[in-house]
Amino acid sequence: MDFRLTVLGTASAKPTAARHQSAQVLNVHGRFFLIDCGEGVQSGLYTNRISPMKIESVFISHIHGDHIFGLFGLLSTMGMISRTQPLTIYAPPSFGPLLKFFLSYYGEGIKFEIRHHPLSMKEPEEIYATKSLSVSAFPLNHKIETFGFIFREKDPQFNVKKWKIDEYSLTLTEIGCVKRGEPVRRVLPDGGVLELPVEELGYKPFEPRSFAYCSDTAPFPEEASWVRGVDLLYHEATYQKTLEDQAQARFHSTTLQAARCALEAGVKKLVIGHYSSRNLNSKDYENECRTLFPETYAADDGDVFDIPLVKLG
Amino acid sequence: MDFRLTVLGTASAKPTAARHQSAQVLNVHGRFFLIDCGEGVQSGLYTNRISPMKIESVFISHIHGDHIFGLFGLLSTMGMISRTQPLTIYAPPSFGPLLKFFLSYYGEGIKFEIRHHPLSMKEPEEIYATKSLSVSAFPLNHKIETFGFIFREKDPQFNVKKWKIDEYSLTLTEIGCVKRGEPVRRVLPDGGVLELPVEELGYKPFEPRSFAYCSDTAPFPEEASWVRGVDLLYHEATYQKTLEDQAQARFHSTTLQAARCALEAGVKKLVIGHYSSRNLNSKDYENECRTLFPETYAADDGDVFDIPLVKLG
Repeated sequence: MDFRLTVLGTASAKPTAARHQSAQVLNVHGRFFLIDCGEGVQSGLYTNRISPMKIESVFISHIHGDHIFGLFGLLSTMGMISRTQPLTIYAPPSFGPLLKFFLSYYGEGIKFEIRHHPLSMKEPEEIYATKSLSVSAFPLNHKIETFGFIFREKDPQFNVKKWKIDEYSLTLTEIGCVKRGEPVRRVLPDGGVLELPVEELGYKPFEPRSFAYCSDTAPFPEEASWVRGVDLLYHEATYQKTLEDQAQARFHSTTLQAARCALEAGVKKLVIGHYSSRNLNSKDYENECRTLFPETYAADDGDVFDIPLVKLG
Repeated sequence: MDFRLTVLGTASAKPTAARHQSAQVLNVHGRFFLIDCGEGVQSGLYTNRISPMKIESVFISHIHGDHIFGLFGLLSTMGMISRTQPLTIYAPPSFGPLLKFFLSYYGEGIKFEIRHHPLSMKEPEEIYATKSLSVSAFPLNHKIETFGFIFREKDPQFNVKKWKIDEYSLTLTEIGCVKRGEPVRRVLPDGGVLELPVEELGYKPFEPRSFAYCSDTAPFPEEASWVRGVDLLYHEATYQKTLEDQAQARFHSTTLQAARCALEAGVKKLVIGHYSSRNLNSKDYENECRTLFPETYAADDGDVFDIPLVKLG
């Protein structure tokens, strides 16, 4: 039951010898989601032993080159290694012509279907769901249309406490209620109603986990409420705290702004990246964030963040 | 007086954790020429301490993704670091629409002029020249239109042997003849002619150096004659010797075919790269080539090949 973020690239617009551009892989229960796709993404995947074949879908926050220029090589490679599974790319509408042009030049070897799911929501909206996972996208505040993403495990079915089945002689219908997290109601012989709360009869087997990705963005009023309470928040922190003017002019965030978002949102852990090429020592960024939000971790390329499963009951 | 090849990427179509795709930098007398531009080129440049600002012009052999997908990020970076010097890109005509599309989406930050010099020659033709360097392009034999390049130092002016000036009382006009490499002719009082050969009066200060780049290609009859006698030949060797059928089907070369070209052309040194992802141990490729051409060197990313200046006289 993995829930693991691998940060492939932590440079901002200008890559360096040690930092590729934005790209991350989230592994949820063995399904691999690629989030942004800067140049060098393939190198990052191979270095971290993640086969491009495993990538189930791709989430592109915006079409600035440092978030997308690795995609075309990756799609070509997927073609070369004979992928057949369709690939959905969640991306702004502006991505459409780019994809079309790419396929017109380089589509010959690509035998799998590529579906572009355009994003245009004004507030968080579910874009992907399985029985156990839901992904929502929401708008960010950048120079061009840009989206963040939240990956949430769905609430699991309740486990029924075995000894309560005997104690209350629960019927199959009543067991079904408990599993769905509903209370059991019984009409008693005297016409009264016995309501047994779900917590009496069952328990959540684990706490659902969540990850939010706030790519390039300046702060905006709804941000903290939209990522409220996630276990892990990735937030860009392009600039150090003294460069707030530059961050504002370029629709980016400083370390303290990222930390403030984490604090207001009450997240458990903050991961930062997308460092300006002015200073590539990620510890300097981390230290600034920690003055406001101690649970900050400045990512370097290849860093892995596991969200452990917390078993309950 | 550098003449130095830095191989940035040695993967073929599929990059790996240790190999970027095709890209090389040739430094001739402090002028930097980028030859092919696969994904990861910026990382390669920074790792090898070559600033993108220094790249004078770019030579693209063909538009397959593994030779070109690093270009768009590089051009964006050049824009960000405020390049103003025009950039000429020598590339097949098919590159034109790609560049146009890129600039329509990402051209806003690019304030320097980008000139596309289309290549369409059927035999070697000079495409660039300064007082000391000449670059020619020639067609290769690949699936799509593909070109190789030869960089040659021009023949230097002759140095005049100082003591010969006194010995023959050379006039300024005669000294000019020697510098141009021409013999000196004098009409003698008796009507006869004295011809002094240039070797008597002067000497070439150094042997001009040359580098040829044979990107993706199957062997073809003219190849060896077109790269005849260069000091350093880079030749792709995608496949090992037993895979000649595959090489032929995909218009690539095997190790032995690359070595045979070097041997027939009488080059001084052969460098190979563009290894298939089947086998990434470059020594295996090198050993096969050396059975035919001992002066073969299998490049790994970051390898540097200097052609030393041989001073004469």
